[in-house]
Amino acid sequence: MGSLSEAVTQVLIPVCALVGICFALIQWFLVSKVRVSNDRGSNGYSDRLIEEAEAEEGVDSLEVTIKCAEIQHAISVGATSFLFTQYKYLSVFVGVFSAIIFLFLGSVKGFSTKSEPCTYNKGNLCKPALANALFTTIAFLLGAFTSTLSGFLGMKIATYANARTTLEARKGVGKAFIVAFRSGAVMGFLLAANGLLVLYVSINLFKLYYGDDWEGLYESITGYGLGGSSMALFGRVGGGIYTKAADVGADLVGKVERNIPEDDPRNPAVIADNVGDNVGDIAGMGSDLFGSYAESSCAALFVASISSFGIGHDYTAMSYPLIISSMGLVVCLITTIFATDLFEIKSVSEIEPSLKRQLVISTVLMTAGIAMVSFFALPSEFTLFNFGTEMTVKHWHIFFCVAIGLWAGLVIGYTTEYYTSNAYSPVRDVADSCRTGAATNVIFGLALGYKSVIIPIFAIAVSIYVSFSLAAMYGIAVSALGMLSTIATGLAIDAYGPISDNAGGIAEMAGMSHKIRETTDALDAAGNTTAAIGKGFAIGSAALVSLALFGAYVSRAGIKTVDVLTPKVFIGLIVGAMLPYWFSAMTMKSVGKAALKMVEEVRRQFNTIPGLMEGRAKPDYATCVKISTDASLREMIPPGALVMLTPLIAGTFFGVETLAGVLAGSLVSGVQVAISASNTGGAWDNAKKYIEAGVSEHAKSLGPKGSDAHKAAVIGDTVGDPLKDTSGPSLNILIKLMAVESLVFAPFFAAHGGLLFKLL
Amino acid sequence: MGSLSEAVTQVLIPVCALVGICFALIQWFLVSKVRVSNDRGSNGYSDRLIEEAEAEEGVDSLEVTIKCAEIQHAISVGATSFLFTQYKYLSVFVGVFSAIIFLFLGSVKGFSTKSEPCTYNKGNLCKPALANALFTTIAFLLGAFTSTLSGFLGMKIATYANARTTLEARKGVGKAFIVAFRSGAVMGFLLAANGLLVLYVSINLFKLYYGDDWEGLYESITGYGLGGSSMALFGRVGGGIYTKAADVGADLVGKVERNIPEDDPRNPAVIADNVGDNVGDIAGMGSDLFGSYAESSCAALFVASISSFGIGHDYTAMSYPLIISSMGLVVCLITTIFATDLFEIKSVSEIEPSLKRQLVISTVLMTAGIAMVSFFALPSEFTLFNFGTEMTVKHWHIFFCVAIGLWAGLVIGYTTEYYTSNAYSPVRDVADSCRTGAATNVIFGLALGYKSVIIPIFAIAVSIYVSFSLAAMYGIAVSALGMLSTIATGLAIDAYGPISDNAGGIAEMAGMSHKIRETTDALDAAGNTTAAIGKGFAIGSAALVSLALFGAYVSRAGIKTVDVLTPKVFIGLIVGAMLPYWFSAMTMKSVGKAALKMVEEVRRQFNTIPGLMEGRAKPDYATCVKISTDASLREMIPPGALVMLTPLIAGTFFGVETLAGVLAGSLVSGVQVAISASNTGGAWDNAKKYIEAGVSEHAKSLGPKGSDAHKAAVIGDTVGDPLKDTSGPSLNILIKLMAVESLVFAPFFAAHGGLLFKLL
Repeated sequence: MGSLSEAVTQVLIPVCALVGICFALIQWFLVSKVRVSNDRGSNGYSDRLIEEAEAEEGVDSLEVTIKCAEIQHAISVGATSFLFTQYKYLSVFVGVFSAIIFLFLGSVKGFSTKSEPCTYNKGNLCKPALANALFTTIAFLLGAFTSTLSGFLGMKIATYANARTTLEARKGVGKAFIVAFRSGAVMGFLLAANGLLVLYVSINLFKLYYGDDWEGLYESITGYGLGGSSMALFGRVGGGIYTKAADVGADLVGKVERNIPEDDPRNPAVIADNVGDNVGDIAGMGSDLFGSYAESSCAALFVASISSFGIGHDYTAMSYPLIISSMGLVVCLITTIFATDLFEIKSVSEIEPSLKRQLVISTVLMTAGIAMVSFFALPSEFTLFNFGTEMTVKHWHIFFCVAIGLWAGLVIGYTTEYYTSNAYSPVRDVADSCRTGAATNVIFGLALGYKSVIIPIFAIAVSIYVSFSLAAMYGIAVSALGMLSTIATGLAIDAYGPISDNAGGIAEMAGMSHKIRETTDALDAAGNTTAAIGKGFAIGSAALVSLALFGAYVSRAGIKTVDVLTPKVFIGLIVGAMLPYWFSAMTMKSVGKAALKMVEEVRRQFNTIPGLMEGRAKPDYATCVKISTDASLREMIPPGALVMLTPLIAGTFFGVETLAGVLAGSLVSGVQVAISASNTGGAWDNAKKYIEAGVSEHAKSLGPKGSDAHKAAVIGDTVGDPLKDTSGPSLNILIKLMAVESLVFAPFFAAHGGLLFKLL
Repeated sequence: MGSLSEAVTQVLIPVCALVGICFALIQWFLVSKVRVSNDRGSNGYSDRLIEEAEAEEGVDSLEVTIKCAEIQHAISVGATSFLFTQYKYLSVFVGVFSAIIFLFLGSVKGFSTKSEPCTYNKGNLCKPALANALFTTIAFLLGAFTSTLSGFLGMKIATYANARTTLEARKGVGKAFIVAFRSGAVMGFLLAANGLLVLYVSINLFKLYYGDDWEGLYESITGYGLGGSSMALFGRVGGGIYTKAADVGADLVGKVERNIPEDDPRNPAVIADNVGDNVGDIAGMGSDLFGSYAESSCAALFVASISSFGIGHDYTAMSYPLIISSMGLVVCLITTIFATDLFEIKSVSEIEPSLKRQLVISTVLMTAGIAMVSFFALPSEFTLFNFGTEMTVKHWHIFFCVAIGLWAGLVIGYTTEYYTSNAYSPVRDVADSCRTGAATNVIFGLALGYKSVIIPIFAIAVSIYVSFSLAAMYGIAVSALGMLSTIATGLAIDAYGPISDNAGGIAEMAGMSHKIRETTDALDAAGNTTAAIGKGFAIGSAALVSLALFGAYVSRAGIKTVDVLTPKVFIGLIVGAMLPYWFSAMTMKSVGKAALKMVEEVRRQFNTIPGLMEGRAKPDYATCVKISTDASLREMIPPGALVMLTPLIAGTFFGVETLAGVLAGSLVSGVQVAISASNTGGAWDNAKKYIEAGVSEHAKSLGPKGSDAHKAAVIGDTVGDPLKDTSGPSLNILIKLMAVESLVFAPFFAAHGGLLFKLL
């Protein structure tokens, strides 16, 4: 027994979650103090500083504010309407899939309502399989709901903050940064705290029925992870296609053919592009990280439930994963204050260091936090099941597992920054290769992406080795949780990117001065890097989470070894390694096709709407929004089906061993594809921004905008768009989701799977 | 016992090999009948047909022939000189690595000269480990020598045939096709027959020492595969960097900046480009396929030596892999006659179908051949070792294993053709995406490459499952051998591509008419597809070979299971899956860097040599050749070191289980990267050719040369160059070579490996 009593634990977790939610609301309130209104009467324009700054530049401040408000409104309406349309489709999916879960799991013991002897807690009776089927379905619905809510709230705050960031950019880079960052923090804290709270409440409610049957309880809870991740899949894929169809389409006609700037209001696809940032990079990413968080918690809880403290009903030790997350909220809260209140950003060059400092501070504080939690919450020694054998584990072993995951996350973050920020030589080399045209730019960019895989993989490998050796699959699960324990800060940093991107778009559309556009561009360039860091975290944690889920699946399916040297496993391995390619082919082609449609529409509008190019007529934004919406909803189905059906088909027809191979193969191959795709894309984007900004002699020799080198850089950037925002980030959902789905359906596959081999 | 006696087998194998060599020489003789000479006196110009044809076009036939001869001479000298320079470097490597092999293997039993009890042939005495070390080293040297010879002879015949193909193109597409194809056949037959003969002779010579100790004999023979493959690595990587540095450099300045055609004699890099085709696509590819052939034979022989017919000393059954190859030579001989004598090519559109027919004919005939060999050479029932257990196998099981490999090869070939030929919709879609610029072209091309992985992987998975289930690792090894049994035809088809490419270059440089250039272009377009098919075969067979070697390694290292659920194996798996990315990053960046240097030199020459652009002055070809040579020799070392050192480091420091994980990981991940890279590149090249040729209304709407869509297509083509000719094809060597190296060093790793874990 650890020294933390059950009663304290029962209070501690919800209190921390509520503190997180309150902190998010405070941040929201602070952001809301920047006034944006398109109502001339109630505008209440009192901020003299802004008026003076604007007056200097000879722009009517009120006019600009109203325009910003209008654009913000258009983006917010577009994003909300897209998400609601998407939810309609998803509700059908959720309904059908809930039925599948219930029927498949219910059929394991032929829908019997009789209690069964427990698997691990020998001699005791556990609840019937039918109850597990029902509660898994309920958990699935809760996960799906929370995931959706996380994405939706993120989108709401992001579309609330974008124009405010633009307006604050008039006061200077520091003020704009704070608004964008605070808004990111709102999203981060709401997501982390909601995820924790819903999970905590669900466990306690489920316990009313399950009582002492913790095996069944935590088996059912895995549905929460499945629900979260399946929504994330459609969010990432759908949102990714939406945003990149619009972005690529807008750029190909606007920047390349018509030679108008990015986000120019004359471009008919510009609203769709800005909506896309919010539904893809914000809502999609929020659902994704929520999914990772939910899955790693569920994996850890499931593995713990069959350990000695699960069987011995040590509530505090069982709740260790939740206490780690609670501690994470407190640590992130302190970390956020460093960025918002203790340091002030005075120049553009301080943005990236400040964001990096956030990572370091949260990691250092969290290491201490983990140590505390590990020593107080865990018994000093306990036993874990390790695929049939038992191993004895000490509490400081678990501390090391969590800490190594956390620090591996930092290493991945720093590596990603090195490969995608234009402050270092890799991106500068890519920019330099634009001298000889787009082809060398693409070659160098692809090579950079491939190379950027090396260090993260070693970091992941070391964490896996250490935590696997110290505490088997429980070690892996809590290691993933360690990487995700600072998720609130990670998300704040990540969400900051698309908010700044939108802020830049609004500045351009509202016709604000060149200086302000430069400020928002600098915020955005840092945002590209932080977005890449966020993706690095998402992928790294996905790798660990998937492995933990994989281990839980293997335990639950009753597999003793996953031996590569058996044909069943090997074919699973090689086909699994192929799946990320199949999936990427689908998503990239979807973006390409949708972008071609967008190009045609944008061209049509430029050719047929008189006065559009001269700025005398308004483009028809709505048609472009519709093209992105339709493409996204139609095209998210095949890749979604690939991911959702593969485990079902592999498990039902080829059996649990082949499915284990598929999971391992897709994990080890998908991680590489995902990291390289997202870093390549980030590097191309920043190589372009490097040339545009012209901050060094070298950059100036490649620029300015419109030079041949810049044109080559734009081509690279466009190629990178679907890589970094559609196929790359969706892949980590592919690997996680297949693993959690396999885990949930494991009893069914173990009972009825492998039909094909049984027939042969 | 099969019904074939040992004496017949002993005669049959060398006779088939000699027949293959004679057939190659006859083809060479037939090619040599096309006269090329730059000596006006002895030219013996008697072919009235040519003179009439040329007279019609108003070109001086003699003038053209002399020019062709000069260009051919320059290419041949360049290629020969590069290869000899490369051999100097390689001889150092071979020397050092021979010493490593001898020392590592000798140290297994502390350089003892005492005989040891056999591992499998219980109760008998086997030769000392020191003898195995010595003979493995000798086999390594033989393999290295034969591999080098295969590449060199291929290069010789290719540089002999290129100008002859050009000259024959004046008589029509059929004649030119025959010359190019016959020359490919020379290479194919020489390589397959030499490989077989050297292996056969080595086994018989080694037997003089080993006598009844077949375990030791066939253990030592594995060195042959290692030698073959390590030369292939440097051949592929070095040759690949050479050819693409020149190609990319020449295109970037010539086509893009100066707007002169491909292979224009004014381009200073044009000779280097044409030399590159011969040292990369011919010599490199020859070494590569020789390596696959040698490795699959060695893997099959090694596994067989520890089966019941190895221990029972059934010579004919043991020689089954060699008899399959002998039968393959006979089948390919008949198949070749179909192309060269039975069907005549009358128009451009018949080229691809004719080459495809070759694949089908050889596959159908070989299926019958395998059946014969299996029933006559194998005992009707025997036992194999399957990782500790024994399994009983019937001869028709083995027939199925070989046949399924063979047919999987055909499926891979057809799939590759579908995705890379501009006769089908995938390439046409890519061409169509050029309408909206280079970015969409690159996006669609990458998506095509990813998609093209699906069917080959399923084909490989099915062959693995069937042959693994029927005959464990022996099944996999003979399945790989089945895929490679028609290697002579496969190589003929493959080598035909670069020969036609060169022929086109020579036609352009010699200033031959537009019509002739069109003919050679059509030959070349078909060649791009066949080159992709050849790479498909190389990769598919590499996957099977690596798995067989992997299995042999596991047996030899005494590993019982390779369980993904152990930390040692899993970290190997994920790091192994990363290696293809690391390797590709190196090779792509090398090509990029070397191409940039080439661009600078070509620009310098255009800017400083007066009259070059007007064709009044000759460029300095030699400097460009030197740039490619230097870059290739310098840049092949790091990727080579990565591949050669990884197994040594993993085995020595992390032990045999981690190394097993590394091999499995690199195999399942590398196959995907390799297939997608080579198909993407092939598709881009042919999308460009599709626009240039303008054979359909659709193609015409995208063209002509110089249109925006064509420029976009050229960018895609350039990006594809290093993918399809450097990193993609080198990857199959990566996976094979690491496996064979692990197999050779297995006794050392088993005895002394895993230092790091021992220390911890």
